[in-house]
Amino acid sequence: MEPRTEKEKMRSGELYHASDSQLALDRQNASRLLRLYNQSLESENDRRTALLKELFGSTGARLYVQPTFRCDYGYNIHVGDGFYANFDCVIIDVCEVRIGDNCLISPGVHIYTASLPLDPVVRASGAEFGRPVTIGNDVWIGGRAIINPGVTIGDNAVIASGAVVTKDVPDNVIVGGNPAKIMNT
Amino acid sequence: MEPRTEKEKMRSGELYHASDSQLALDRQNASRLLRLYNQSLESENDRRTALLKELFGSTGARLYVQPTFRCDYGYNIHVGDGFYANFDCVIIDVCEVRIGDNCLISPGVHIYTASLPLDPVVRASGAEFGRPVTIGNDVWIGGRAIINPGVTIGDNAVIASGAVVTKDVPDNVIVGGNPAKIMNT
Amino acid sequence: MEPRTEKEKMRSGELYHASDSQLALDRQNASRLLRLYNQSLESENDRRTALLKELFGSTGARLYVQPTFRCDYGYNIHVGDGFYANFDCVIIDVCEVRIGDNCLISPGVHIYTASLPLDPVVRASGAEFGRPVTIGNDVWIGGRAIINPGVTIGDNAVIASGAVVTKDVPDNVIVGGNPAKIMNT
Repeated sequence: MEPRTEKEKMRSGELYHASDSQLALDRQNASRLLRLYNQSLESENDRRTALLKELFGSTGARLYVQPTFRCDYGYNIHVGDGFYANFDCVIIDVCEVRIGDNCLISPGVHIYTASLPLDPVVRASGAEFGRPVTIGNDVWIGGRAIINPGVTIGDNAVIASGAVVTKDVPDNVIVGGNPAKIMNT
Repeated sequence: MEPRTEKEKMRSGELYHASDSQLALDRQNASRLLRLYNQSLESENDRRTALLKELFGSTGARLYVQPTFRCDYGYNIHVGDGFYANFDCVIIDVCEVRIGDNCLISPGVHIYTASLPLDPVVRASGAEFGRPVTIGNDVWIGGRAIINPGVTIGDNAVIASGAVVTKDVPDNVIVGGNPAKIMNT
Repeated sequence: MEPRTEKEKMRSGELYHASDSQLALDRQNASRLLRLYNQSLESENDRRTALLKELFGSTGARLYVQPTFRCDYGYNIHVGDGFYANFDCVIIDVCEVRIGDNCLISPGVHIYTASLPLDPVVRASGAEFGRPVTIGNDVWIGGRAIINPGVTIGDNAVIASGAVVTKDVPDNVIVGGNPAKIMNT
């Protein structure tokens, strides 16, 4: 049996080392695409869409991401149709981030899949790991919200501005606060 | 009777569509002024002040905004005398943001007037709406605080770092937390 | 006896005026180094390290700070060996920020030593003051956390993403929330 690559370990949630040469190349490629994207002008809409489609793992037909946007790899990000993210969106995509149709992301939202070992000795070894994030259809994430690794957000959910989402969010609810709790029941 | 424009609807808090061509032009103009502002150097203080006075709806004599600064329209922002905002301030000004005299804004503060419909069907239609924000005199807003749409903040109030302000804040109090609560009574 | 300079007052936690000409020059110098740092490319690792060593008060051998990084003076920042800060880290260093060995800082962390008088009359006079921040060894600060002036964080502590740390954090604990509280006891 072939040994698993660091990239395979990363994407499947095992401990891995980001210093791996393949992963470093992947981040360098994403970094180049992001630089082109973030320097592009509003008049270059077609070019922007093409760059996003090259960067992301998959997209729907209609998508708009207001620069500045940042991610680590890009290929782990899958967005549905009608995706809109306002400026300063950050997606740390060491594992998959799957976002459904008609999702709207307000300014300054951070979505994290990356985590570090809680044991300081393991942490100092350079090992890290991730957990995927899944977001349903018709979700609105308010300004400056944080979505933590491993979280699943249901359809039609609304995440209040400044919320820190540490647990799964059911369909059709509004959550807010730090840690985020359901606000509309 | 003339039908109301999208701009009029936006500024009065009704549902409107930001894809409107006049609003798109207005954002493009603000975007151009912001690019000039954010690329300006510390030595160009007079030019910076002139750009801010062109961008904002009204200002006092003394104002200083450390780049990077971002807003949507600019003309809905009114600041009093002695206004100071540190870097990475964001004001989403689809409705009026009125700020009194001698207000100090620490790094990374977001002030929002824009909101989206909670009903996912209405939200998917592209309709959105705003609520004005009013901030009194001698207010200090701490680092990374968020001010939500519709909030009024009283004179001499202090907003703690990281606070998410979702309700009105009386005169002479300190608020903090998420959601922000009065801390000094 | 010589009168104390504004710089001495600033660094010792007394009320001071940042408009002082020496402090303005110091900020201008830090600003220049930060501009060079933030415009540098990933391929220029040696130059990046040299710039950080010029900017910071002291460092260990191994350090990596992902641009964009921002601070006010730089010389008040002391980091141990194995320091890693991801992008958009902000350290407002009017007083000393001492960080131990093997500390990891996730994206978007703000560390503040600067504060303003709560009395609006004193605040309007332009006087401000600071409190130092001390961070132990093997600490991990999660994404978008805020560390407030005067805080001491113990060895092996983990600060959850989005935490607003307003009080000292003991060794070997996980804290989270706004205000941050111990989560693992």
